[in-house]
Amino acid sequence: MAKSRFEYVRTFERENLFHQETYLVVRVDGRGFHKFSAEYQFSKPNDMRALQVMNSAAQSLMEAIPEILLAYGDSDEYSFLLRKKCELFERRESKLVSTFASTISAYYQFYWNKIIPEKPLNVQRLPTFDARVVMYPNEKIVRDYFSWRQVDCHINNLYNTTFWTLVERGGLTPKEAENKLIGTLSSDKNEILFKDFNINYNNEPEIYKKGTVLVRENPNLRQELTEELSDRQKQREIKKLHKSRIETYHIDLINDKFWEDRPWIFQ
Amino acid sequence: MAKSRFEYVRTFERENLFHQETYLVVRVDGRGFHKFSAEYQFSKPNDMRALQVMNSAAQSLMEAIPEILLAYGDSDEYSFLLRKKCELFERRESKLVSTFASTISAYYQFYWNKIIPEKPLNVQRLPTFDARVVMYPNEKIVRDYFSWRQVDCHINNLYNTTFWTLVERGGLTPKEAENKLIGTLSSDKNEILFKDFNINYNNEPEIYKKGTVLVRENPNLRQELTEELSDRQKQREIKKLHKSRIETYHIDLINDKFWEDRPWIFQ
Amino acid sequence: MAKSRFEYVRTFERENLFHQETYLVVRVDGRGFHKFSAEYQFSKPNDMRALQVMNSAAQSLMEAIPEILLAYGDSDEYSFLLRKKCELFERRESKLVSTFASTISAYYQFYWNKIIPEKPLNVQRLPTFDARVVMYPNEKIVRDYFSWRQVDCHINNLYNTTFWTLVERGGLTPKEAENKLIGTLSSDKNEILFKDFNINYNNEPEIYKKGTVLVRENPNLRQELTEELSDRQKQREIKKLHKSRIETYHIDLINDKFWEDRPWIFQ
Amino acid sequence: MAKSRFEYVRTFERENLFHQETYLVVRVDGRGFHKFSAEYQFSKPNDMRALQVMNSAAQSLMEAIPEILLAYGDSDEYSFLLRKKCELFERRESKLVSTFASTISAYYQFYWNKIIPEKPLNVQRLPTFDARVVMYPNEKIVRDYFSWRQVDCHINNLYNTTFWTLVERGGLTPKEAENKLIGTLSSDKNEILFKDFNINYNNEPEIYKKGTVLVRENPNLRQELTEELSDRQKQREIKKLHKSRIETYHIDLINDKFWEDRPWIFQ
Repeated sequence: MAKSRFEYVRTFERENLFHQETYLVVRVDGRGFHKFSAEYQFSKPNDMRALQVMNSAAQSLMEAIPEILLAYGDSDEYSFLLRKKCELFERRESKLVSTFASTISAYYQFYWNKIIPEKPLNVQRLPTFDARVVMYPNEKIVRDYFSWRQVDCHINNLYNTTFWTLVERGGLTPKEAENKLIGTLSSDKNEILFKDFNINYNNEPEIYKKGTVLVRENPNLRQELTEELSDRQKQREIKKLHKSRIETYHIDLINDKFWEDRPWIFQ
Repeated sequence: MAKSRFEYVRTFERENLFHQETYLVVRVDGRGFHKFSAEYQFSKPNDMRALQVMNSAAQSLMEAIPEILLAYGDSDEYSFLLRKKCELFERRESKLVSTFASTISAYYQFYWNKIIPEKPLNVQRLPTFDARVVMYPNEKIVRDYFSWRQVDCHINNLYNTTFWTLVERGGLTPKEAENKLIGTLSSDKNEILFKDFNINYNNEPEIYKKGTVLVRENPNLRQELTEELSDRQKQREIKKLHKSRIETYHIDLINDKFWEDRPWIFQ
Repeated sequence: MAKSRFEYVRTFERENLFHQETYLVVRVDGRGFHKFSAEYQFSKPNDMRALQVMNSAAQSLMEAIPEILLAYGDSDEYSFLLRKKCELFERRESKLVSTFASTISAYYQFYWNKIIPEKPLNVQRLPTFDARVVMYPNEKIVRDYFSWRQVDCHINNLYNTTFWTLVERGGLTPKEAENKLIGTLSSDKNEILFKDFNINYNNEPEIYKKGTVLVRENPNLRQELTEELSDRQKQREIKKLHKSRIETYHIDLINDKFWEDRPWIFQ
Repeated sequence: MAKSRFEYVRTFERENLFHQETYLVVRVDGRGFHKFSAEYQFSKPNDMRALQVMNSAAQSLMEAIPEILLAYGDSDEYSFLLRKKCELFERRESKLVSTFASTISAYYQFYWNKIIPEKPLNVQRLPTFDARVVMYPNEKIVRDYFSWRQVDCHINNLYNTTFWTLVERGGLTPKEAENKLIGTLSSDKNEILFKDFNINYNNEPEIYKKGTVLVRENPNLRQELTEELSDRQKQREIKKLHKSRIETYHIDLINDKFWEDRPWIFQ
């Protein structure tokens, strides 16, 4: 089509292309979900249906983008691992970041309307997400990344479980509960739960304690080869990814077993 | 809260901070809207209700982010101008890009459900958007940017109007219409419309020919000062922006008048 | 020429291209010049011949790169302003940074050998420089940049003059002189110099107090035009720059006069 | 020291920090060495003393920066590999690029004056270098990088050897020699040399055919550990690097042997 004399403004556009052969992790994070959960009266410390909305959205995103091999989430955040060979959007940062943020928001609203229809969303408080992409050069650091998020889930959930037990069953005000927990260790919180409320934290649901792992199970990709794949071979590999099933778990990502059982994650 | 030994993975995060005192334009663009418009049977060449959804979404976004002084859109894209002094998200690229993409998607789905309830969205084809931020150093280039988008709107709309008139009223197949238009100038298309179909393109609705301009009318900001504003003064300026009304127009952005009447856009 | 199967490694290269229509300032800074000045026994607080070496190097650099319109330096650092229309190396950061650092080092060594031949350079302590490029979007900030450097020159020179007077004429140890100056204001240092040593700081040489300004005098460039210049016109403008003379001053850059007299700097 | 109201201009500075745990290769390249070699009448196709200058400069640079484990060069270019754990200048791009470019220039000029004193450098044509840093995520790609440079050396040297033999011994003009070589394969060039001039290319000096490899021999670093090293341990490792000897070779980098013999390069 005809070009105008204003077309030159495009020369001001810049793209950050992530290096090939590195692992990209896209993390999406709910914006203002503290207020969002208050507005829609989430049950505390965890709202199972809101988690279902989030997990359904993440699962749909993962189905839509076959090069996501692994996802991990809890609360209102999710991290998606793109495989090392991923060439999605030529690995452009803005495209990745905006597409993930937009897509998770779209699915979240969609599933909210399905799963929690009795709480219609209000235009002043729609669910939105920000996103970032982080590049990691090797397997060890990718594993440490997911360990970091799972440890964080554990720390937050133990805190929240104790806090809300103190408030809802112990009759403390939020401020009193907060003060009581300042400086406490994990063992202290476990003890409060057990001694004062007869709650054994270990018996809490795994989905709350461990978060949710979505993994593309054995796509049976080619082993790493010295030669480059042709474009047709690449398409075939992506089809395999697309067809391989996605499983949901609430299990440990910190130990070796999960990873040793799934070598294709780092292929 | 306690930090884990995995925390170091955060050192791999990078932020691109756009330079202060420059103009940032965020452009959002519908992903796969060709298929989207087919799935939901948009009327051609323009679907007024779909435009209403888009314009409502853009207006809500602009209400939510007071530092947007101007927005321009047509079809499934919109460009938002952030004022020169904007410090939103510390001008971080990922945060801007993901928030705009997510928020426009959230509003679009919300308004779709309100405005076009008889066409419920299907989980396989939800409306999503990508986004990019471009930095422009001065007023002239910002004006040229908006001129570029408006010229593009004109070129596309004249083409689409002629194409769909040939198909729907002229009985051509899409392929025939496409071939007939190859190599034609604007004047040729005007003539086809006028001679063959008695359509005077100039009489087409302004919203189709010019696109939609949203502008924050006279927020009455302080003149540019040599001194820095204090944080409290900055907050007060943002409140003024928040309260100033947003007007909708379908007018020319290429000539000087629009800009001369609104000097605060570049303050 | 033939390409090898290893050629793909080039896809890992990245370039940062600075935006057009912005001002680029390249600042070079001597690496380890504290030790360098000790090794070659610079006179204190200023060594006139070392300044001559530095100024000659900067002048030669400015002759070699015609799009430098202005340079300012003192001690072992120099800042070079590239004009807004500059397209040198397509505005690539690595190329600019490495070329400036390399070239200033080459000239410095060359002029050292000419100007101070009785102090031959020792391979363990050669003069080297680092460099950075900073992008500034408008005239005001460019002026503030040069004001910043000139204020810095003043602050350093007043301190150093007082410090070395206390040591060399006052008989203090360096540690004693340092302690005596902790917390002193400019006025205090002026008074120490005047009362104790009968030195009127205002009478110190301008080159020490103000640093050195190199400016490309009136290149008589075209006024800013709406139309783009052709490549041939661009070449002609660069030739004009090349031929226009470079003048050296030790004058104030903070007030308006310098800039008002030289509007082409911002053309 | 006192800060001025102009200090804010520093907020416009940006740093690109390369990701940890990746390999950085800095490549320096002579600027305008075609003209430089003409000005100083290099012998063709290779000038042994100019190579000595370049190799001495690279060796001195490697002695000065202990975290360079390997360097490879031919003609007027050199590539330096920084070890994976390198934290030099916090991995800042501008600092790395400018320091390498400046330092190689300083050493080159210094060694030129020592080794080729009868050809004094002329201020209009001093030796300068540009530089770039490229990040590589894993060992395979680093090896491919060095293979790429060595294949390039081979291709260039075979071409240049044949070209200059045709010109200097065959009596062809440069233009005729160039035409004769268009479209020739390596085997054709070998045959020209052998049949027409009785030169067996395989017997040419290894330094011309293979380029020069500088390697820091067995620094006996710690094996990769799960735990982080303390700052003191890091200093000790750097001292070991500093003390370990640098060896010069003209050998094959494409096959496995070189790398298998030196596992510390990738530690």
